[in-house]
Amino acid sequence: MAELSCDALDQLRDKIDVVDSQLIDLLAQRLSLVAEVGEVKSTAGVPIYAPDREAAMLAKRRAEADTAGIGGDLIEDILRRLMRESYHREKDTGFKCLKPDLGRVVVIGGAGKLGSIFVRMFRLSGYQVDIVEQNDWADAPQLFAEAGLVVVSVPINITEQLIAQSLTHLPAHCVLVDLTSTKQQPMNAMLTAHQGPVLGLHPMFGPDVVSMAKQVIIYCDGRDNQDYQWLLQQMAIWGAKLIAADPSEHDKAMTLVQGMRHFTSFVYGQHLAAENPNLEQLLEFSSPIYRLELAMVGRLFAQDSALYADIIFASPENRAMLSRYLARFEQANKMLLAGDRAGFISSFEQVSDWFGDYSEQFLLESRNLLMQASDSRTV
Amino acid sequence: MAELSCDALDQLRDKIDVVDSQLIDLLAQRLSLVAEVGEVKSTAGVPIYAPDREAAMLAKRRAEADTAGIGGDLIEDILRRLMRESYHREKDTGFKCLKPDLGRVVVIGGAGKLGSIFVRMFRLSGYQVDIVEQNDWADAPQLFAEAGLVVVSVPINITEQLIAQSLTHLPAHCVLVDLTSTKQQPMNAMLTAHQGPVLGLHPMFGPDVVSMAKQVIIYCDGRDNQDYQWLLQQMAIWGAKLIAADPSEHDKAMTLVQGMRHFTSFVYGQHLAAENPNLEQLLEFSSPIYRLELAMVGRLFAQDSALYADIIFASPENRAMLSRYLARFEQANKMLLAGDRAGFISSFEQVSDWFGDYSEQFLLESRNLLMQASDSRTV
Repeated sequence: MAELSCDALDQLRDKIDVVDSQLIDLLAQRLSLVAEVGEVKSTAGVPIYAPDREAAMLAKRRAEADTAGIGGDLIEDILRRLMRESYHREKDTGFKCLKPDLGRVVVIGGAGKLGSIFVRMFRLSGYQVDIVEQNDWADAPQLFAEAGLVVVSVPINITEQLIAQSLTHLPAHCVLVDLTSTKQQPMNAMLTAHQGPVLGLHPMFGPDVVSMAKQVIIYCDGRDNQDYQWLLQQMAIWGAKLIAADPSEHDKAMTLVQGMRHFTSFVYGQHLAAENPNLEQLLEFSSPIYRLELAMVGRLFAQDSALYADIIFASPENRAMLSRYLARFEQANKMLLAGDRAGFISSFEQVSDWFGDYSEQFLLESRNLLMQASDSRTV
Repeated sequence: MAELSCDALDQLRDKIDVVDSQLIDLLAQRLSLVAEVGEVKSTAGVPIYAPDREAAMLAKRRAEADTAGIGGDLIEDILRRLMRESYHREKDTGFKCLKPDLGRVVVIGGAGKLGSIFVRMFRLSGYQVDIVEQNDWADAPQLFAEAGLVVVSVPINITEQLIAQSLTHLPAHCVLVDLTSTKQQPMNAMLTAHQGPVLGLHPMFGPDVVSMAKQVIIYCDGRDNQDYQWLLQQMAIWGAKLIAADPSEHDKAMTLVQGMRHFTSFVYGQHLAAENPNLEQLLEFSSPIYRLELAMVGRLFAQDSALYADIIFASPENRAMLSRYLARFEQANKMLLAGDRAGFISSFEQVSDWFGDYSEQFLLESRNLLMQASDSRTV
């Protein structure tokens, strides 16, 4: 190792130190310039996330990087990471208020994890926001009387009942919105209880989201959609990506997006606990992809069991779909026990056909992500 | 939108252009300095991946970034991405040869995906490497006679047979190594066929790996381990992380790391194809975590069905373990059909206890990765 302390190496390392310190200065400069852009945008009420402009900027930088002899992927990855930082910093700056004469925004369950994100965003946009929790129902009627928007963000298993019992006397012009992860039943309940504008939302992000930039919010039109276009635009200003859906299509897709995912992760976790391997050794032995899979299963169990029980048990479609999955697993297992390698391969090829070009796209996408996982691997 | 074309905004964007162009220059400078360090290291035979030095450097930069008012996570992520680029660039520079008097390195199956990675690394390290494929067996005995190292990299279902039939007359001092994803049976076969040094390896990376830096290789000592220490050191110089394991422990862990993962992904894919949802819509509706899960399942089907069939069907332990998994899924499904929410929660809490601090760690780890996935989300 002695020869590695040679002057040549020390000199190189000193030079890298200088470059890194210039790098840090440049990053700080860029963040502050983007923050200034953000302020101009916020005043003008322009969405903080502009996909087309972003794509054009990245294409230009990739070309410049190519000319400089460094990889296009490298500069794109670094700029994307910087943009994330900028979005996160923008989260506490204000947003333009598109409906200053709205009246009160009342968020039922606004102290909860998801509700509080919306409370914060409405407040950052200059709205007067009130929170109603279980113990505040005495004050609720007075707040509702002055409300221009009521947002329901309560556990899925009490949503319908709460709407039916407590939201029947909202002002006619008031927009009624729910954030439930199923849409058909809560929307029916809202349409029955309230005669004014109704909108169903399903924010597709967890409570740990830092900024709404690039986050997907699914929305289902209920009634009088012209009366809540401002709200959709307001969320776009926050950076959210709004996707329209029919309530029944939404619910059907969610049996796969949520029910299937949560339940199979749950059983996977049960199985691991029962097999009881040495988890530390398992991680040591892991390829990046297996470590990621283990993390995706394990993360479930750091979260709220009641929340997942609610999501899984709330939908009868989940039960039916999971029974079909179980039947398929039994079939596949029979094939395995019979040593039917040819059957496995033929079935594999059929699924491969079904995925079509997506499987290759997924391979590329996950390869990049696995490299990132591997970048930050410390154990 | 007109007000956004104002001078203030144009000026800011011009300034960002200038910063970005300086950024690209700096990145190019840093890559070339690190390449020089790499050359010095390579001459000295020092591993290209030095975890302790890397950690110390990152800690220092984080502190500097803090002082400059930018996030420590930001600079760490950017530097890790840069280091990956440096590793990938180093992949074609040579490595110090630790055993210049070895004689021939013969890689059986060296034209295959995994074998060719090792062929390239040995050649980059100055060894004389010969490849033996199915049609080259006529020349094999002559190559074996001069071999200091024979590496077996053939499909798992022919590994044992090939070793038993064709590797019984290697020179006594020759190191015999396999790269199979199970270890007990191939190692027994090697120990029986060959009386000299035997080493089992299981590289825990896919054929798409660009550099061996940070990649895990599990190794199992077979016989005369003093005679292949140079090889372990050689792989460390390539940047690999070497983990010792007992063959039976290894195989047991792999039923979970590989068998469970591949088979459940296979059935998940079958289930999706049978449910036949609109995949494009599903992706549009997806949270980052579900998109990732879909990608992890879908990527399987862009790969070689025979390879996965071999891995899954090769091990009787896989069959037994998957039958236990199926039984657990049946139990959980009964709970679901019975609407046993309390049972679900109690079981969830037990698994959560089993994961212990790991579930929180996995949550943090995957959160960071999901942010990265979200950074690069384009659809």
